[in-house]
Amino acid sequence: MFESAEIGHRIAKKEYREREPVLRAALLNAQYALLEQAKAPVIILINGADGAGKGETGNLFNEWMDPRHIHTEAFDAVDPDHAGRPEMWRYWQALPQKGHIGILFGSWYSDPILAHVMGHEKKARFTQRLERIRHFERMLSAEGAVLLKFWFHLSRSAARTRFKALEKDPKNAWRVTKDDWVRLQHYEEFVTVCSQALRKTSTAEAPWRVIEGADPAYRALTAGDQLLEALQTAVQANADARARPTVQRAAAAPVPSSASGLLASFDYSRKLSRKHYEAELAQLQSRLAVLSRDARMASHALVLVFEGMDAAGKGSTLRRITQALDARHYRVVPIAAPTDEERAQPYLWRFWRQLPGHGHTTVFDRSWYGRVLVERVEGFCSEADWMRGYDEINTFEEEQVRAGTILLKFWMAITADEQLRRFNERKATPYKQFKITDDDWRNREKWPAYEHAVADMIDRTSTDVTPWHVVASDDKLFSRIAVLRQVCESVEQALTVRKKKGRA
Amino acid sequence: MFESAEIGHRIAKKEYREREPVLRAALLNAQYALLEQAKAPVIILINGADGAGKGETGNLFNEWMDPRHIHTEAFDAVDPDHAGRPEMWRYWQALPQKGHIGILFGSWYSDPILAHVMGHEKKARFTQRLERIRHFERMLSAEGAVLLKFWFHLSRSAARTRFKALEKDPKNAWRVTKDDWVRLQHYEEFVTVCSQALRKTSTAEAPWRVIEGADPAYRALTAGDQLLEALQTAVQANADARARPTVQRAAAAPVPSSASGLLASFDYSRKLSRKHYEAELAQLQSRLAVLSRDARMASHALVLVFEGMDAAGKGSTLRRITQALDARHYRVVPIAAPTDEERAQPYLWRFWRQLPGHGHTTVFDRSWYGRVLVERVEGFCSEADWMRGYDEINTFEEEQVRAGTILLKFWMAITADEQLRRFNERKATPYKQFKITDDDWRNREKWPAYEHAVADMIDRTSTDVTPWHVVASDDKLFSRIAVLRQVCESVEQALTVRKKKGRA
Repeated sequence: MFESAEIGHRIAKKEYREREPVLRAALLNAQYALLEQAKAPVIILINGADGAGKGETGNLFNEWMDPRHIHTEAFDAVDPDHAGRPEMWRYWQALPQKGHIGILFGSWYSDPILAHVMGHEKKARFTQRLERIRHFERMLSAEGAVLLKFWFHLSRSAARTRFKALEKDPKNAWRVTKDDWVRLQHYEEFVTVCSQALRKTSTAEAPWRVIEGADPAYRALTAGDQLLEALQTAVQANADARARPTVQRAAAAPVPSSASGLLASFDYSRKLSRKHYEAELAQLQSRLAVLSRDARMASHALVLVFEGMDAAGKGSTLRRITQALDARHYRVVPIAAPTDEERAQPYLWRFWRQLPGHGHTTVFDRSWYGRVLVERVEGFCSEADWMRGYDEINTFEEEQVRAGTILLKFWMAITADEQLRRFNERKATPYKQFKITDDDWRNREKWPAYEHAVADMIDRTSTDVTPWHVVASDDKLFSRIAVLRQVCESVEQALTVRKKKGRA
Repeated sequence: MFESAEIGHRIAKKEYREREPVLRAALLNAQYALLEQAKAPVIILINGADGAGKGETGNLFNEWMDPRHIHTEAFDAVDPDHAGRPEMWRYWQALPQKGHIGILFGSWYSDPILAHVMGHEKKARFTQRLERIRHFERMLSAEGAVLLKFWFHLSRSAARTRFKALEKDPKNAWRVTKDDWVRLQHYEEFVTVCSQALRKTSTAEAPWRVIEGADPAYRALTAGDQLLEALQTAVQANADARARPTVQRAAAAPVPSSASGLLASFDYSRKLSRKHYEAELAQLQSRLAVLSRDARMASHALVLVFEGMDAAGKGSTLRRITQALDARHYRVVPIAAPTDEERAQPYLWRFWRQLPGHGHTTVFDRSWYGRVLVERVEGFCSEADWMRGYDEINTFEEEQVRAGTILLKFWMAITADEQLRRFNERKATPYKQFKITDDDWRNREKWPAYEHAVADMIDRTSTDVTPWHVVASDDKLFSRIAVLRQVCESVEQALTVRKKKGRA
């Protein structure tokens, strides 16, 4: 992987002085063009060997371009525990907006590589983490991001020479730390592991760009040229996309007659008497109250997702749950139209930012499933976008579960007849009228298309770790109790498993 | 302060059962009305004695209203060090958006009260902190926030009775901690300090509402009634404001002939030769590079504010500074139109969110001074709004300095003639054309009004701790060096003071 980066490339000072001003003017132009298009975020990863010029290159990029639209973030190798949020959370928070440039030092590669080199993590875990990174980067590319992955390489002898030179210079001696020398002793392992990481994550959409780091002039111009080319390609691609005649909003796909099978075959008739309801509600709420205050919850987060047709009873059900919780530790997030800051980010960004830390609960009233429901049915995104949504969602949920989150998702299933009854009731009740809008009636006309989308959603996103709970909801009393009981059981189970593990 | 909250108020179960459903329906309606108006955020502070029903009341509010539009946040008494950001930073992050409700447990009162009760902080510091809180709350009210400050009180004997009852019940025993008993021993000091705090911060716009906490029914209905009344008053006030004929955009105030005195009398003729510039630039940049990497910077943040007429050279000057810094530790924030999330918050919110932690630098290209410059001149806000801006800005900057921030603000002063020359040059240079817009020409016509606003701004916000540095900028080389030198000197001075203090 690094053979051609130990050749000893150099660029003479004179050549540098000639080429640098031309390059920086072109970079600045390309940066402004991208900013104006506001279509693609540019994500530059800076990784590589210590002393190979990572910091210097990042500083140069900021110097050459307009730093007001560049966000630079450095990630330490040690992964801090962000209150127990999933591993990728901190990277999501650092993503640049469309049109902007993000420079990420260390990025999502440092931690897995160092953990493996230092022997904290075995090969299997290392491979898994690389696989997850591939997923993540594929998503970024699909969302239009330009991903530039720079790897600055230094041969062992070049690294030693560089460290010694720095240490001799009083102004720069601080740059060389004890850790640098320790890591140099592990040079061979480091190079082996890095080669593996780079090979496994060098993809067509986001290849690694290995640059020899010994000569400052060579490494600066090489990185700069590659950056320029990537920016210009992106500007051109965005311009082409704009010039192309707008694709007509996709016609709703024909609904196969068998599609609604799952929901049509469902038993909606289950009921519960008011008397049983009151008794069960009191009992389950106090069970949940005790569970949610269990000391073991300090190493879990709880995420509840509510989806369902309009008037399926999402709001009234989730309130029966939050009544049992301590308001200081939960948050209900209603999903409506995204804000403009959210629109400037990949689709899942606005859900990532809401994820709870350990000891906390977030209840989503509608959720990331909007991608494969309303956005699909209404044609708000392309077919390719919602098709990749299933996989992205599964990965997103897996990452939460891996971080200790208890994640439950409910489809509140009602019949079209029951929905009509509830709409009419809302229309007739003065204080419920705000709950019914023209949109609701319009959505109702698309019932078959929604049912089709729901069936696909459940098929493709009901996994072992995060199965869908489809709840018969024509009877509100029945559905509230069913949901509450499921929440209690799942939390109890998660705490017990944890306990057993702890004892083993 | 608490006499009338030890009377032993009670409400019978029967009365509670009758009044509660009426109250909750009315609360829900008021909540939705406020949400739809999206004018005023509602901030509910819940403070008081341990065991007086704070948590229960917060939970009830969430139960009675729609929890999807309520954000509840609990603040521990111990103030965590948010990477060295100012004390109020974490409260700014928790403010609800316009139309939403925020419930803040503990809020900004817990920490000063407990620090004083426990003897960690003397009376003088306690009084100072309360004064700052008054400032903060005055700002919130001026921004249209509805502020409800609830204090739940319990007599010493009632507290003891309550703790004992809870401890006997296995399900609730966890609610009583050792700290609760320790604090009960300090009951008298606690009550004395709280009385002082409440008296000093009970203002016309945000009075304290002391509620006896012993009887759950009494405290719930009393708090609920007060909340309802406050919500309804706010809804009515917003509706009235909307119904009133729109006030015409304020005509620009006549410019007193002497107003531009400050800037007119300024010496713009200072120049620097290219040769001197090059030498000084190299010397100052390396001085700043070393300073900014000094270990003592770990307990300081650096905030640089650049203001000036269009084409005054803000961008090119700040780049000369960032070139000396490590990109991993600085961020440049260009201030343009606010995003919709920012528009839903008090004016200063979007600057608070950008404040750097210790060891980091934020450079603002235009800043919070927009309030008293462009917003004033263009009539984007009312006169009352920009008038209170001076005081709010001074307080904002004081809080930063108190937290260890080195804050420098530069007015890049150019003459109207020089601006015209630069505009024409930009128009004539192909790669600079993007820098000149119709807005720039329009702003130029308002030069006298801007000059007047600038003079007022400098008069009213040049304080001992954060003086304005007015820099002659007709000659770009001179102004860049002047700014760089000032940054070096101020940073050096701050580090030296720190050092001396440390030795003392």
